[in-house]
Amino acid sequence: MARWYPGTEDRLRQAALDLFAEHGYDDVTVTQIAERAGITRRSYFRYFPDKREVLFGGSEALPPAIAEAVLSSAEQTPPAIALDAARRVGALFVARVDRTAERRAVIASSPELQERERTKSAVITAALQEALKKRGAAEDEARLVARLVTVCFQEAIERWSETGEDFDACLDAVSASVRAAAEVFPDAVRR
Amino acid sequence: MARWYPGTEDRLRQAALDLFAEHGYDDVTVTQIAERAGITRRSYFRYFPDKREVLFGGSEALPPAIAEAVLSSAEQTPPAIALDAARRVGALFVARVDRTAERRAVIASSPELQERERTKSAVITAALQEALKKRGAAEDEARLVARLVTVCFQEAIERWSETGEDFDACLDAVSASVRAAAEVFPDAVRR
Repeated sequence: MARWYPGTEDRLRQAALDLFAEHGYDDVTVTQIAERAGITRRSYFRYFPDKREVLFGGSEALPPAIAEAVLSSAEQTPPAIALDAARRVGALFVARVDRTAERRAVIASSPELQERERTKSAVITAALQEALKKRGAAEDEARLVARLVTVCFQEAIERWSETGEDFDACLDAVSASVRAAAEVFPDAVRR
Repeated sequence: MARWYPGTEDRLRQAALDLFAEHGYDDVTVTQIAERAGITRRSYFRYFPDKREVLFGGSEALPPAIAEAVLSSAEQTPPAIALDAARRVGALFVARVDRTAERRAVIASSPELQERERTKSAVITAALQEALKKRGAAEDEARLVARLVTVCFQEAIERWSETGEDFDACLDAVSASVRAAAEVFPDAVRR
């Protein structure tokens, strides 16, 4: 059984961000990341399954955390429950992430990283949707609300990383904007 | 220069759907699809770049069509413009797609197809966002409205394919539900 060195995962993450900034994501190898963090290429794969994942470490905790927050929410309607869950989980999430602006710049530079990020986001939507159904939402409503709140969550995370404002304030601003945007929909519908 | 046989693209699409239904997406090869459509494997790649794309043919027309619809919309506010564009382009799109339920079932069966579909959807969002900026929307508003209306569009297409109702009616129902959901957001925000 291989030993698991505490702090190695974080060292790998920092090494990867440094190397991506220096050479560009595509031109960095797993071997280079591992070497800079002082471990072997082989050991790297004990921490992350591939090169992409070093940028998304910790995100696998988000979908179950959001589902749990939905089930325990004191709110009563699906959109309020989902937004409350996004708020509670988002606050925890942003407190644990660092070098966000650099991370976002790397993701924006690579189609395969954007793809991985969309997959992560789809997993959050699916977890939200299933949890909302357990809270009594109908299939259609659960899917729609899950997608809508995923957009709010994603947008709030991006604004938080762009502006450095409080995550809560970002989510407030985003959900208020969504509400204002949706208010014009019936006019567009009537044409 | 290779000849381009009219109708071949459609024959490939039908052959692919038949084969995917018979054997499952993962167990069908490009060679089998080509053979069933009466062409060579090599010719297949004149029509589609890979096995996935045979299921998404025509979708590359959507982002420029939506962008054009945004630029020519008679509506005045970004959300109304974007929803109007989704309505006009969606109606054209659904008229040209067939065997939608089968197509959706195949996509739902394969992570790599879901990934491709998310990429297509992200390209629509990006096109909407850029076009809304050309219509005067600020960066933040353009991104948020583009994401919101992409959710409406996607959800309306899915309801249309699930229920067989008119696309317009599906988009009306979806946008009304989004509005109703967003109306509870401020309460959740106040807590």
